[in-house]
Amino acid sequence: MTNFFDGIEPIRYDPSAETDLAYRHYNPDEIVMGKRMEDQLRFAVAYWHSFAWEGGDPFGGRTFDRPWYPQDSMEMARAKADVAFEMFALLGQPFFCFHDADVRPEGASFAESQRNLEEIVDYFGEKMEATGTKLLWGTANMFTHRRFMAGAATNPDPDVFAWSAATVKNCIDATKKLGGQNYVLWGGREGYETLLNTDLVRERQQAGRFLQMVVDYKHKIGFDGAILIEPKPQEPSKHQYDYDVNTVYSFLKEFGLEGEVKMNIEQGHAILAGHSFEHELAMAAAFGILGSIDMNRNDYQSGWDTDQFPNSVPEVALAYYEILKAGGFTTGGTNFDAKLRRQSLDPVDLIAGHVGAMDVCARGLKAAAAMLEDGGLEKARGERYAGWDAPKNRDMLENGTLESITERVLSEGIDPEPRSGRQERLENYINRFV
Amino acid sequence: MTNFFDGIEPIRYDPSAETDLAYRHYNPDEIVMGKRMEDQLRFAVAYWHSFAWEGGDPFGGRTFDRPWYPQDSMEMARAKADVAFEMFALLGQPFFCFHDADVRPEGASFAESQRNLEEIVDYFGEKMEATGTKLLWGTANMFTHRRFMAGAATNPDPDVFAWSAATVKNCIDATKKLGGQNYVLWGGREGYETLLNTDLVRERQQAGRFLQMVVDYKHKIGFDGAILIEPKPQEPSKHQYDYDVNTVYSFLKEFGLEGEVKMNIEQGHAILAGHSFEHELAMAAAFGILGSIDMNRNDYQSGWDTDQFPNSVPEVALAYYEILKAGGFTTGGTNFDAKLRRQSLDPVDLIAGHVGAMDVCARGLKAAAAMLEDGGLEKARGERYAGWDAPKNRDMLENGTLESITERVLSEGIDPEPRSGRQERLENYINRFV
Amino acid sequence: MTNFFDGIEPIRYDPSAETDLAYRHYNPDEIVMGKRMEDQLRFAVAYWHSFAWEGGDPFGGRTFDRPWYPQDSMEMARAKADVAFEMFALLGQPFFCFHDADVRPEGASFAESQRNLEEIVDYFGEKMEATGTKLLWGTANMFTHRRFMAGAATNPDPDVFAWSAATVKNCIDATKKLGGQNYVLWGGREGYETLLNTDLVRERQQAGRFLQMVVDYKHKIGFDGAILIEPKPQEPSKHQYDYDVNTVYSFLKEFGLEGEVKMNIEQGHAILAGHSFEHELAMAAAFGILGSIDMNRNDYQSGWDTDQFPNSVPEVALAYYEILKAGGFTTGGTNFDAKLRRQSLDPVDLIAGHVGAMDVCARGLKAAAAMLEDGGLEKARGERYAGWDAPKNRDMLENGTLESITERVLSEGIDPEPRSGRQERLENYINRFV
Amino acid sequence: MTNFFDGIEPIRYDPSAETDLAYRHYNPDEIVMGKRMEDQLRFAVAYWHSFAWEGGDPFGGRTFDRPWYPQDSMEMARAKADVAFEMFALLGQPFFCFHDADVRPEGASFAESQRNLEEIVDYFGEKMEATGTKLLWGTANMFTHRRFMAGAATNPDPDVFAWSAATVKNCIDATKKLGGQNYVLWGGREGYETLLNTDLVRERQQAGRFLQMVVDYKHKIGFDGAILIEPKPQEPSKHQYDYDVNTVYSFLKEFGLEGEVKMNIEQGHAILAGHSFEHELAMAAAFGILGSIDMNRNDYQSGWDTDQFPNSVPEVALAYYEILKAGGFTTGGTNFDAKLRRQSLDPVDLIAGHVGAMDVCARGLKAAAAMLEDGGLEKARGERYAGWDAPKNRDMLENGTLESITERVLSEGIDPEPRSGRQERLENYINRFV
Repeated sequence: MTNFFDGIEPIRYDPSAETDLAYRHYNPDEIVMGKRMEDQLRFAVAYWHSFAWEGGDPFGGRTFDRPWYPQDSMEMARAKADVAFEMFALLGQPFFCFHDADVRPEGASFAESQRNLEEIVDYFGEKMEATGTKLLWGTANMFTHRRFMAGAATNPDPDVFAWSAATVKNCIDATKKLGGQNYVLWGGREGYETLLNTDLVRERQQAGRFLQMVVDYKHKIGFDGAILIEPKPQEPSKHQYDYDVNTVYSFLKEFGLEGEVKMNIEQGHAILAGHSFEHELAMAAAFGILGSIDMNRNDYQSGWDTDQFPNSVPEVALAYYEILKAGGFTTGGTNFDAKLRRQSLDPVDLIAGHVGAMDVCARGLKAAAAMLEDGGLEKARGERYAGWDAPKNRDMLENGTLESITERVLSEGIDPEPRSGRQERLENYINRFV
Repeated sequence: MTNFFDGIEPIRYDPSAETDLAYRHYNPDEIVMGKRMEDQLRFAVAYWHSFAWEGGDPFGGRTFDRPWYPQDSMEMARAKADVAFEMFALLGQPFFCFHDADVRPEGASFAESQRNLEEIVDYFGEKMEATGTKLLWGTANMFTHRRFMAGAATNPDPDVFAWSAATVKNCIDATKKLGGQNYVLWGGREGYETLLNTDLVRERQQAGRFLQMVVDYKHKIGFDGAILIEPKPQEPSKHQYDYDVNTVYSFLKEFGLEGEVKMNIEQGHAILAGHSFEHELAMAAAFGILGSIDMNRNDYQSGWDTDQFPNSVPEVALAYYEILKAGGFTTGGTNFDAKLRRQSLDPVDLIAGHVGAMDVCARGLKAAAAMLEDGGLEKARGERYAGWDAPKNRDMLENGTLESITERVLSEGIDPEPRSGRQERLENYINRFV
Repeated sequence: MTNFFDGIEPIRYDPSAETDLAYRHYNPDEIVMGKRMEDQLRFAVAYWHSFAWEGGDPFGGRTFDRPWYPQDSMEMARAKADVAFEMFALLGQPFFCFHDADVRPEGASFAESQRNLEEIVDYFGEKMEATGTKLLWGTANMFTHRRFMAGAATNPDPDVFAWSAATVKNCIDATKKLGGQNYVLWGGREGYETLLNTDLVRERQQAGRFLQMVVDYKHKIGFDGAILIEPKPQEPSKHQYDYDVNTVYSFLKEFGLEGEVKMNIEQGHAILAGHSFEHELAMAAAFGILGSIDMNRNDYQSGWDTDQFPNSVPEVALAYYEILKAGGFTTGGTNFDAKLRRQSLDPVDLIAGHVGAMDVCARGLKAAAAMLEDGGLEKARGERYAGWDAPKNRDMLENGTLESITERVLSEGIDPEPRSGRQERLENYINRFV
Repeated sequence: MTNFFDGIEPIRYDPSAETDLAYRHYNPDEIVMGKRMEDQLRFAVAYWHSFAWEGGDPFGGRTFDRPWYPQDSMEMARAKADVAFEMFALLGQPFFCFHDADVRPEGASFAESQRNLEEIVDYFGEKMEATGTKLLWGTANMFTHRRFMAGAATNPDPDVFAWSAATVKNCIDATKKLGGQNYVLWGGREGYETLLNTDLVRERQQAGRFLQMVVDYKHKIGFDGAILIEPKPQEPSKHQYDYDVNTVYSFLKEFGLEGEVKMNIEQGHAILAGHSFEHELAMAAAFGILGSIDMNRNDYQSGWDTDQFPNSVPEVALAYYEILKAGGFTTGGTNFDAKLRRQSLDPVDLIAGHVGAMDVCARGLKAAAAMLEDGGLEKARGERYAGWDAPKNRDMLENGTLESITERVLSEGIDPEPRSGRQERLENYINRFV
């Protein structure tokens, strides 16, 4: 045992606790819509933000001071893992997620990085067995190192494409070995800084082939998790090809992969793309590609990715409403791709950030379930579209032509009268649950 | 002849004119990349903004005071048309565009509106023959009247769907009759105000069927123009289904219409969607669905659609660069979906707005052509991706697998070294032409 | 009695009501921080959005269909007033607010508009006496009519300045006559569309003199309400001189009016200016110029003023926290400068919008009061700055010089160690109350 | 001589050069409005972005690979200075600017950092004498090191205030020693991350006292440069106290320093604050506090500070128009607080970035001068406000009261008729010069 979290006890469900280090709402065993709350929410801690990110921002360097810094040796990588798994034990969340670059030091060559990864994966494996913490998903960091500055799969340099392909192979192997339930691709550099030096067609073609190779490899090795793409509109690049759910769907259709790949949707990225989180979830559900979520919010006032822990129950409730309506998570879960504010220096801040987030999600989930069980929203929605259930209207939709419909408008003297959309009443309805 | 434009002479190309009512750069007969400038730019005036919009904004009513107000009778519709065609004659631009609602008064019934449209279409027909002005595209206004408040094709009320189908039929008929070269659909209300009362799946299904009917009708009647969708992310609705080029492409693929429908792309809408205009043009070109453009800018400082005349040569040049690179316009053209600022009350402002815009476009086109002819940008782009032309890299892309590539990385000790993206030098290059 | 609200009963406090037309949280007589809830919140209905706005947006005309349309006669103005005061009786909120243009028809001359206003003011007076509803504030609409298109006080045309001065005189008179507790100036056109035609110095000088005249007149006639300015950054103009609280304060200081004028702060405007609502409230409190609030939210996803009813308890709670901390309202109150969504056509929507908003505010107020009474936030804040209470540090702040402090840094070897800002824990703390 | 810029010749004015490493428009000796172009533009290179910034962004580390990395010793600091002054010699721009942290390594104590600064300042002094390059301004970096994470002057910890005061003293001393013409304060951390842990009143009080100390010290030591504040709305902090020109002016008025402190205005910061650059310049000119500029643009599509070299002549022209109209620079100048894109790895990119920027500025300056000399804009502006020059209107403004003006409106039957604002024609006018 390290002494990093000295003095902090395992977090328990205790609605009337004195301390702020208790779950007031997250009760893993409580049944919500027929499942244990833990199995509905499927919480995951993000390894990188919690343990590898050092508190820098564009105008300042690291603020944190951790015993495992500098993060440049296998010894430090193990020290970091020790603390990470201690935190998992304190929080009791069922899952974690990782990037290769956050768990192992960069080697002097590809081969050395690969060995480092293999070694730490074994170390993780033992700890996972000991603690019972599972892997929600693995991924490759193909944006931090300068070799990726112009993209990974979409790089103008074929050698970077090759490096990236090899990296993803290793990360899928690691994910499979650790029993990961999904593999995620986030293409932070798969886009451009300026269209002036970019061949859009070529780059998208490279990305399509790359994704096909990933899918082929998954099948070849029998990895039975889901392949997920995480959309984001921009930052760090000026434009990212995986802008939002619709854009990714257009990409998947173009390359015939819409049956193979799903989405990992992040609230903050939805907002940066000009959407609400629930919109992106609903779109993905409509396309049948809703996979998993990153439940970290963006500050509406800041034009960049702030990756904050969620803290608005009303917002979170609308998200879980879409997820529950779509049937709930299967391989996916609720990952906190959230980082502490860089002034939150203390180990207890790391715990408290997660505790608060898990409670907010628990409240949101319960509110969403209550709304679904009450049925008020779906009833109102059903009534609004009820006209379409009439046989003549269903027939018009299926078999009508502009001509046949025009005839009907003229002969029947159709003159539609608007009906209230009742937005305020529906918003009030939501507020009875949150 | 009305006396609306009294004292204003036909606008001529005269680079050294004293007056500001002359083209200093737009010379219709000048040859640019093998075509007359007029045939490259294919300018169109938008009837609605120029003649039907009365100067209102969300906080104020009409500011203009035109002899054809109030716009509620056929007499006024004809008076408006008289002035419009006089302006076309003064400007000498080859095309115009219209919505049904802007050329005819709303009738008391669908049938009366239809008769009004037919009557004004005949009136237009005579004037077009007399003046030689052609129709770039027609469209239906399915957003202003209260019946469309919850959508047209995507309305929860089947009667509104019916009304909309009949409206589009009439507008396509009118467009065909007037020899229009395209038919445009902009779905300003095809989206939602709140997800709470919206059935996304149902609404998109309705939109898909509607578009199919439009395409079927086009073929049935032998309309040989292009069907164009105009993307916009939001406003007036909170979310519009035709968010941007990628979203529309995803929609077209879903309904199997990507071979039938192209895009009418507006600069202001691109910006509202978080893109540059040239990005949207390049994406559409990549998908083979680039149709026509609305060359009206948005104010970067305002979060809504400002529909201003273009005035930045550097921006316009980048747009025409993409258009020329994609082969130039076929059925499409450069429409100014621009409105005067509401304080620009005078007839001369209407003329000057168009003159300035046409000159800016002419400068942009010439700069774009010069850059293409110089070839510097394409040369730099080619060099940047040159590695991909090597047979082993082409083979990797076509036939590689994660495993085969990983082997190569390890055996060849691949370790890519970044190369400069040269953005500043390319930006400087552009500035030599604009 | 009109039959507009037929079937709707007066809204009562009933936490367990079946109907959605009940207050679940707003209990006027409940004591919150030593005052009746009604006296803390001081709710006001905005006459214009509720009764005069017809449902238009930039792309569509009116959607509502009210018995008092068209709003162009004194008869209709009285019919509108009848319904308005019926709604006030149903809601039981203590206050309302109005613009001149929303309560009386525009006359053919200034004199006729003045007579219309006087007549309707008398009519209001009787109704206020009968129902007990009071006037929170009056104001002049100097942005809708085309004469104001280039500004009111800041117009390049001195005649518009004159018209505006006379208009404000009449509106202050009306406000005083009706016992209004504040008079508000919102300068929607006091700014510019383009700097190219604007003389910033001249316009700000005009605005300064105008405000001085208003203050002088207030004193002259013995109006004992507060004069309030409502900041907004833009829309309808591209730039508005009353951008935000700091900008207005800079203006007040420039013209020596910081002791005479306070702020009416709107949540939506705060957001459009790039601030949070609580920030603007805190800034105004810091300057001693916090007057009243418009508690209507903006949609974070839309770049314009959406004027929606509040629906986020966590956000509202932070606003009331600042207000209570600053001592609560004196002459000010909580105005809903909110409009129904344009699809919310029914009379019941108008009632429900207000009921939901009042409940959200009641929950927010109670949460804010509980936080203040608990004291956790202020305690944490106090501890964070405790170092400054040490005499040597207080002395450094008051009497130090760069030289004396440098000496101290060197001689004492000062080397500050960062301490956690505890943001997540404070956010969690808030969530225990909302 | 280092070999960093091997193969690059000094940049000369040569409008018809083959190479892109020539000035096509910047001709230092050309007379523009009575002064040499060099003396109008007063270009400065920013030391930090050009030589200290390593190419990182929030998602990636350094991309550049410079001979003076790692930047942690005096030896490297001198190596960096050698290259910097070689670049100054190649470019021939008259000025540079620096932060302490970019020119010297951080010491283990305040005293050591101070010694490092003194040593490098002497080294700079020799080089400045040898090359003739002058110092436009110096400043202190009080945002990068973790000790500043919660602010410098506004820190909750008095020791950080002390450290900051001592730092500024040393930086003013260094600036004076090197003959700097201004001293700049940019308070990147002088704001907050969350209002929850912030005492606004206290922090602004600290900032006010700090600025007073700076002004006092300037006078004490006889530094005759200007003290400049650089406004920015946010980033890195969520809210920065120096939001924009108006906010800073409000702050200066509050602390009685408006006669002592001027503005250093950055285009990118203006845009982040929701303004145009020319707006901020015009506001500062109106307040008499226009000092100097940072001529680096922001990408309108990105919500953070992109610090790019300027490349839009039309935008730059409007900025210089305001500057020339205000009398041109006195102590200030045109600093490029611009960084290369992180993919622009080559030494030649650094040169080319500056060459392109200087040419864009030269074109903008010449266009601005031509417009002022032509006088068309000022003439139009004068005509628009001409009514105010009539004695009765001047009298109304100076001596009117709401009552006297109302009487006039009624007795004269004033009924103002709107006049065109002519925005499009003015925009066309601008386009004749750019």
